[in-house]
Amino acid sequence: MPSEHLKSLLSRLSRHLDKSQLLTSDEALAPYECDGLSAYRQRPLLVALPDTIEQIQATLRTCYDMDIPVVTRGAGTGLSGGALPCKDGVVLSLAKFNKILDIDTQNRTARVQPGVRNLAITEAATPYGLYYAPDPSSQIACSIGGNVAENAGGIHCLKYGLTVHNILSIELLTIDGEPLSVGTQALDHPGFDLLALLTGSEGMLGVIIEITVKLLPKPEIARVLMASFDGVERAGDAVAAIIGSGIIPGGLEMMDNPAIRAAEDFVHAGYPVDASAILLCELDGTASEVEGQIKTVRHVLAENGATEVRIAGDEQERMAFWAGRKAAFPAVGRLAPDYYCMDGTIPRKHLGRVLKHIDKLSREYGLPVANVFHAGDGNLHPLILYDANQQGQLRLAEKLGAQILELCVAVGGTITGEHGVGMEKIDQMCVQFQATELAQFHAVKDAFDPKRLLNPGKAVPELHRCAELGAMHVHHGQLPHPEIERF
Amino acid sequence: MPSEHLKSLLSRLSRHLDKSQLLTSDEALAPYECDGLSAYRQRPLLVALPDTIEQIQATLRTCYDMDIPVVTRGAGTGLSGGALPCKDGVVLSLAKFNKILDIDTQNRTARVQPGVRNLAITEAATPYGLYYAPDPSSQIACSIGGNVAENAGGIHCLKYGLTVHNILSIELLTIDGEPLSVGTQALDHPGFDLLALLTGSEGMLGVIIEITVKLLPKPEIARVLMASFDGVERAGDAVAAIIGSGIIPGGLEMMDNPAIRAAEDFVHAGYPVDASAILLCELDGTASEVEGQIKTVRHVLAENGATEVRIAGDEQERMAFWAGRKAAFPAVGRLAPDYYCMDGTIPRKHLGRVLKHIDKLSREYGLPVANVFHAGDGNLHPLILYDANQQGQLRLAEKLGAQILELCVAVGGTITGEHGVGMEKIDQMCVQFQATELAQFHAVKDAFDPKRLLNPGKAVPELHRCAELGAMHVHHGQLPHPEIERF
Repeated sequence: MPSEHLKSLLSRLSRHLDKSQLLTSDEALAPYECDGLSAYRQRPLLVALPDTIEQIQATLRTCYDMDIPVVTRGAGTGLSGGALPCKDGVVLSLAKFNKILDIDTQNRTARVQPGVRNLAITEAATPYGLYYAPDPSSQIACSIGGNVAENAGGIHCLKYGLTVHNILSIELLTIDGEPLSVGTQALDHPGFDLLALLTGSEGMLGVIIEITVKLLPKPEIARVLMASFDGVERAGDAVAAIIGSGIIPGGLEMMDNPAIRAAEDFVHAGYPVDASAILLCELDGTASEVEGQIKTVRHVLAENGATEVRIAGDEQERMAFWAGRKAAFPAVGRLAPDYYCMDGTIPRKHLGRVLKHIDKLSREYGLPVANVFHAGDGNLHPLILYDANQQGQLRLAEKLGAQILELCVAVGGTITGEHGVGMEKIDQMCVQFQATELAQFHAVKDAFDPKRLLNPGKAVPELHRCAELGAMHVHHGQLPHPEIERF
Repeated sequence: MPSEHLKSLLSRLSRHLDKSQLLTSDEALAPYECDGLSAYRQRPLLVALPDTIEQIQATLRTCYDMDIPVVTRGAGTGLSGGALPCKDGVVLSLAKFNKILDIDTQNRTARVQPGVRNLAITEAATPYGLYYAPDPSSQIACSIGGNVAENAGGIHCLKYGLTVHNILSIELLTIDGEPLSVGTQALDHPGFDLLALLTGSEGMLGVIIEITVKLLPKPEIARVLMASFDGVERAGDAVAAIIGSGIIPGGLEMMDNPAIRAAEDFVHAGYPVDASAILLCELDGTASEVEGQIKTVRHVLAENGATEVRIAGDEQERMAFWAGRKAAFPAVGRLAPDYYCMDGTIPRKHLGRVLKHIDKLSREYGLPVANVFHAGDGNLHPLILYDANQQGQLRLAEKLGAQILELCVAVGGTITGEHGVGMEKIDQMCVQFQATELAQFHAVKDAFDPKRLLNPGKAVPELHRCAELGAMHVHHGQLPHPEIERF
């Protein structure tokens, strides 16, 4: 892009934003060149840091007029490269929109700006005995706007739902700066469900400027069980059995041996380092409810071959059990110079089978894989260990990652649970979907952003990209509908 | 439309469907001229009764080629005229698609055709200790395809969610007969959330030919409390207090005095006919959980001025308590020659205030209103009593209904909880939404159905219609965002 273009963009934006709000120097742009997926990097043309709604609108309108791509950015903690800048585009940072506007204790909602940190909502709600349920591992840092864009999950989403289940409405600006109110404060809303459509749309449809989230009453009590297993498959089966018993735990997490060792070595959580796998099962509710559930879960675990079951004796031990899980990513990061975190989801019943196959792939590729995941949801986070300084290892890790995702699709799962498609999994979208389905996504995109300026190249691949890849579409683990297939 | 046109349509469809599957005589068309909202009637050009996917596709392709509108119809139990035929259009009945294709007990899902009755799913799942949670009052008759099209709710949706929360995937045909798979068997799915977009889209975006629903384990135990109040507002406040205590009951229903009397007179449920209002509160879960919750709810009810609280002593009494609620509509129907059932949703905290205002409006219009509703969700079903044979009364009832819906919007609620917009509430959409929002709905519609042939004239009003009405848009009970408003 010629610098004339940049000059003209700058001159137009300067009418609405201060000089300090428009970053263009290499130094100032550097922190924006990647998000949490640092393997992909791209410096944008310019970063805009508006602090009023009017400034966001002016930025959007200018870009719209000038056909300049816009990538909206929250805290930049995303793991799929969803906030990777475009070379010829603007990064629109919403970091300054970090106010909690209102907490309504009677309706149990909070109205917040998009740059508010996930955990800050719970902190603000705690005095009222309330909290915001979705808790991605990055909750200290990640922004609620980014959570909505990625439909973030977390440990508690098994019982309390993903972001989409925990928000009531959003205020949005379309690419041409038009305001749009989506959703209501009531349970349901007429018209098409744009709230769900926008949630998880990875910044492709609009710019979120305000969110009303649901708050939940803090459970009276929460207790954690830790169960050890001498086989990963057995632990997987126990997960299915717990859910099968009719209990939805507040959290149901699994770690395999490499992850257990790494975590124990790092935070000394008291994990059994010889176990093939552990399950952490949190039960929350009223005291009597939790007591009954503990009894059932203990029984199910014993029946499914747990070699040891421990219950956190007090709050301190409960926090220690969780500390290991929450620190698992950085802990695994100490085992190798680099790791690549995957994010696939499978039907729970295939857990054991898929883990076995991942182990086989890991051996074939010669790259260790540590598994840490939201087992109750079937949401896997295999961490592929590699060394980026060794030629070809990043490429190999990416290839192994792609194979793992395709395995997830083959058993009827998906290529993402909560991290989004972004840049990272764009090719796997060709495996997940048929051309007609991708075409429908593009049609929906065009209904919001006909010039395709918002976060271009992410989330939904162009059809020719899939054609070039020659990717084989696999549907729910099988070929689609035989009746339809004939047409 | 000239009969030449019909002839040509018939001749093309006859290549794919038997004569018996194509209805055109006045006699045969009569049952299709309305759905559950019988105040609106229209005879279609033709009714098609396909029994294979190929026949649905052929019907759609023919209509698409010939620019003929298509209204898809399930069981025809809808209450907003969503299945009202077009004069020049085809009614596509999916009644013959009534098979349960698969029950997967391990993943707890059922794969069903769209014409399967809601209750039939639970009946088929019962031997495995499972059930399908959404339970609209019409569940004996209504079809699951219609439930998806309207995002149906029911007594249990407070705790277990609306239809959208209880389905995993759908197979769809677009207006030109193209198959589209939406959603997966896993918790989340990449790409835009078309599953939620299609749920509740009132037959405007595609034709659903298969649905995979979630099944839940039947709770160990369910108990019902009935509380009496000497003021409707007090009962409303008790609802907010129960939810505020952190308990989400399996069902939380309210009836006012006219509804109580009518139900008691009809089914002898043992209701206190002198009470101003009753609450029915069902608690389900494990025995110990329910016991704890009963204690809490009793306490909350006492604190909020309940004059009497009764607990159903056995399953028979529990069923009797519910029988009155479930028969409330027909029971109220005995009080007057006709009734008009409204469906608005409000934030729970405004329950008392809104009920008082409805009472005031009822007096002003001189039409009695009985209130029966899903109180926990804030989903009101005011039943306006009138006599269609008295000149002008229907018109008056419609006007009162419109005022009630606009009241719901004014306090931050919506014009529909679960019945959909259909034909009935099309004008109130102009009150609920701004022109930019309606334009966005149309853009999404065009992304699926650019010729606008699917269920035209329903759910989303044309912008000029709103302009002609001169409707005043009210946003969340107040004018929109002050910052945005300035633009």
